[in-house]
Amino acid sequence: GGKIVVMAGPCSVEGRDLMMETARLVSDAGAQVLRGGAYKPRTSPYTFQGFGVEGLAQLKDAGEAFNMPVVTEIMDAVHLPAFVDHDIDMMQIGARNMQNFTMLKAIAGAGIPILLKRALSGTVDEWLYSAEYLLAFGCPGVILCERGIRTYEPATRNTLDLTVLPLLREWTHLPIIVDPAHAVGVARYIRPLAAASVAAGADGLIVEAHPRPEQALSDKDQALLPNELAGIVGDARVQAAVTGRSFHP
Amino acid sequence: GGKIVVMAGPCSVEGRDLMMETARLVSDAGAQVLRGGAYKPRTSPYTFQGFGVEGLAQLKDAGEAFNMPVVTEIMDAVHLPAFVDHDIDMMQIGARNMQNFTMLKAIAGAGIPILLKRALSGTVDEWLYSAEYLLAFGCPGVILCERGIRTYEPATRNTLDLTVLPLLREWTHLPIIVDPAHAVGVARYIRPLAAASVAAGADGLIVEAHPRPEQALSDKDQALLPNELAGIVGDARVQAAVTGRSFHP
Amino acid sequence: GGKIVVMAGPCSVEGRDLMMETARLVSDAGAQVLRGGAYKPRTSPYTFQGFGVEGLAQLKDAGEAFNMPVVTEIMDAVHLPAFVDHDIDMMQIGARNMQNFTMLKAIAGAGIPILLKRALSGTVDEWLYSAEYLLAFGCPGVILCERGIRTYEPATRNTLDLTVLPLLREWTHLPIIVDPAHAVGVARYIRPLAAASVAAGADGLIVEAHPRPEQALSDKDQALLPNELAGIVGDARVQAAVTGRSFHP
Amino acid sequence: GGKIVVMAGPCSVEGRDLMMETARLVSDAGAQVLRGGAYKPRTSPYTFQGFGVEGLAQLKDAGEAFNMPVVTEIMDAVHLPAFVDHDIDMMQIGARNMQNFTMLKAIAGAGIPILLKRALSGTVDEWLYSAEYLLAFGCPGVILCERGIRTYEPATRNTLDLTVLPLLREWTHLPIIVDPAHAVGVARYIRPLAAASVAAGADGLIVEAHPRPEQALSDKDQALLPNELAGIVGDARVQAAVTGRSFHP
Repeated sequence: GGKIVVMAGPCSVEGRDLMMETARLVSDAGAQVLRGGAYKPRTSPYTFQGFGVEGLAQLKDAGEAFNMPVVTEIMDAVHLPAFVDHDIDMMQIGARNMQNFTMLKAIAGAGIPILLKRALSGTVDEWLYSAEYLLAFGCPGVILCERGIRTYEPATRNTLDLTVLPLLREWTHLPIIVDPAHAVGVARYIRPLAAASVAAGADGLIVEAHPRPEQALSDKDQALLPNELAGIVGDARVQAAVTGRSFHP
Repeated sequence: GGKIVVMAGPCSVEGRDLMMETARLVSDAGAQVLRGGAYKPRTSPYTFQGFGVEGLAQLKDAGEAFNMPVVTEIMDAVHLPAFVDHDIDMMQIGARNMQNFTMLKAIAGAGIPILLKRALSGTVDEWLYSAEYLLAFGCPGVILCERGIRTYEPATRNTLDLTVLPLLREWTHLPIIVDPAHAVGVARYIRPLAAASVAAGADGLIVEAHPRPEQALSDKDQALLPNELAGIVGDARVQAAVTGRSFHP
Repeated sequence: GGKIVVMAGPCSVEGRDLMMETARLVSDAGAQVLRGGAYKPRTSPYTFQGFGVEGLAQLKDAGEAFNMPVVTEIMDAVHLPAFVDHDIDMMQIGARNMQNFTMLKAIAGAGIPILLKRALSGTVDEWLYSAEYLLAFGCPGVILCERGIRTYEPATRNTLDLTVLPLLREWTHLPIIVDPAHAVGVARYIRPLAAASVAAGADGLIVEAHPRPEQALSDKDQALLPNELAGIVGDARVQAAVTGRSFHP
Repeated sequence: GGKIVVMAGPCSVEGRDLMMETARLVSDAGAQVLRGGAYKPRTSPYTFQGFGVEGLAQLKDAGEAFNMPVVTEIMDAVHLPAFVDHDIDMMQIGARNMQNFTMLKAIAGAGIPILLKRALSGTVDEWLYSAEYLLAFGCPGVILCERGIRTYEPATRNTLDLTVLPLLREWTHLPIIVDPAHAVGVARYIRPLAAASVAAGADGLIVEAHPRPEQALSDKDQALLPNELAGIVGDARVQAAVTGRSFHP
């Protein structure tokens, strides 16, 4: 509703102390929502797959310690009870599960708002239909998240598609946030794209932050340092102001 | 192992009589495996979603009546017991679930071979990693299925990627079949692409057939008539011969 | 050099009076460079192909009347003498000619700066190599222009690729401007993307404007009205300020 | 008209003796048309750009010595007189020039048939419109050439789009040949794709051959050895037979 939100945190929840330390830096930087992955969708079966339910607990505790709601990815409806038990504030559906229709139906009615990432080559139509699955099956709130689409260009990990933002404003009333990091894939390139996302009309951002990115267990190339995150939050405030919106809260 | 297989049947299982009628035409045309969807991944929540477990029963009965193994899509691991109960011969993982990693892990160990479709924009690397999930978690056999990738070209539904077949022959020992119908999307265009797939080295084909395509509940534009299917099977026999392979059995 | 520029004008030069009227509205809106097409690359041989040399004369006269340099597309080196005769300030190479290597070589040495649009599916590497052709053959100045790339998404005409802007800042010292209109293709969607382009670091914008878009001979759906253009120029000033740059002059 | 043709030769004409040697191997392998590049479109200005008019002479002489018509790429209408003087039998328009509309118009009327390659991301519509430019401006014959389109897949250089062949059969009466080598990019992968192309309905093939590929000045990774070319020609004969066509002459 006209208020800009920044969601930040580690790619993966990696332990209680580190989660607390990261939550502090996220809060200090001015972000309002804490993210962190407990269940990780990984291309290879041989890479780190996340700490699961223990990660949910660590994330929620860190969120409460710094008074931030938490958002984290759900990969299967069988994990839903753990999300409910830990009072997770928002569930994320990842790009690879945007059209996992049985999961969409199964988790929609749990009473938890959902952040729906666009599939790697999801069309706007397909994305909105997946949101429709969630809403039709009882989801109390859906936020769309653009995270870069797959194109022929090898210079960047993905291509951030801000072109669809003005269309989405007409086609849907759902809020739209942008994840610029998974598109460009390199931490030092994220900041201008984050500002551009808000300038293009996004309602918020979701990014990864880590006190020591080189030690992150996943996505270390795109994790932001504390001062980089603070810069992005500052830019988002400015962009909110110049586009006639405000920064939450 | 050098023998060409054709899998055919309705897009969706639509009732007992129709399933029997279709199995007969599939058998008469010379195809060796019966396909049919009981659980249907549909872009919109408002379109036909399949008959579920009742569809599994109808498919298996039709397969047994005509002495053909059956293959059908699984969309969630919670449905696995029904696939086991009905003695489904092969489970299909659809393009939209190629990277549904929790499902891959959960169904791999059930002792049933799996047909793994390539994602809409799945790279060869990602496809093989998803096969690796299945094999690492105990799957007794994986068949790769190319079904067209998403490109910029609007003239066809998808672009059939036969270019990767010679590579896959070097990179993996897994069999590879091709679904030309989901790529081109129009029944009368399928036959030359089916022949081309076998000529390019595919171990088999999977296509949709229906006695009265205009009445099909899903994918009616790409369902083959009995004589069209027979033509495709005949071409596959010829291509098997001219490429030094044989037609199963 | 840190100064933001807006280039605007009709898609096609369509006659002396209309060109003057459009130049006035461009100048009034605060844009600094006048654009207009005399030679038009058209997909079909049966659509309007531009007024050629007469268009160059009308464009240049309008630019002089309002004290604005002019930029216009060159489609073949045989037209170069006309560009020199009419003292065209900057030549544009269109997306379809980015890799027309003989033209790049032939026009580079004419002493006129060149605006080099990215090809419809040009990679960053190919784009920079085409710039290298121009520079190696004597071009006094090259400006890169991102105009949307071709992707699978049908909801928009093209996908504006702002993701590459931070990379280009590291990889080249050449200025980069953005043409948001050819990407999104609909006038009312252009403004937020124009602001986003400057926020992402672009050195300027190029857009189409027309006093009565519905009468334009080409690209009427994406031609801006006078007040829309003024809004875009105003946003560019604001974005220049908040990103620590200034607005030219 | 139902007869299959194979065009082969070096990527670049590299000298009189080598051209003769290559023409001999092309003829011995059973191909009917000799190809070779005199003007080379190269991404970088610093790589070999072709021998120009001297290359035309060497190519034509080799063609006459072995009684084969020749086909070679034209990159600019200013070179047309040299093509006429050397009695070049067919001109090729490369992928990067498919929408070089001024060249299409300028060379169409020279009385020489034209081989029109599809652009890297050219749609079927755009391709046919470019053919229409040629025909409308007097070209006596146009052959379409599919050579792989640009997609997200990094495992292959391009993605060969055979999916459009059945459509093109309905949409146009123009002959269609396929260049499988520029799609897959590696010599040992070409043969199955060549057979698949003819199986899918192509009227012919165009490939690169070289007596010593490792010494080729361009595209050495995809140049075929004499025995590989003979295998491809043999497959084309077989595919012509099994699809009810004949091999030219």
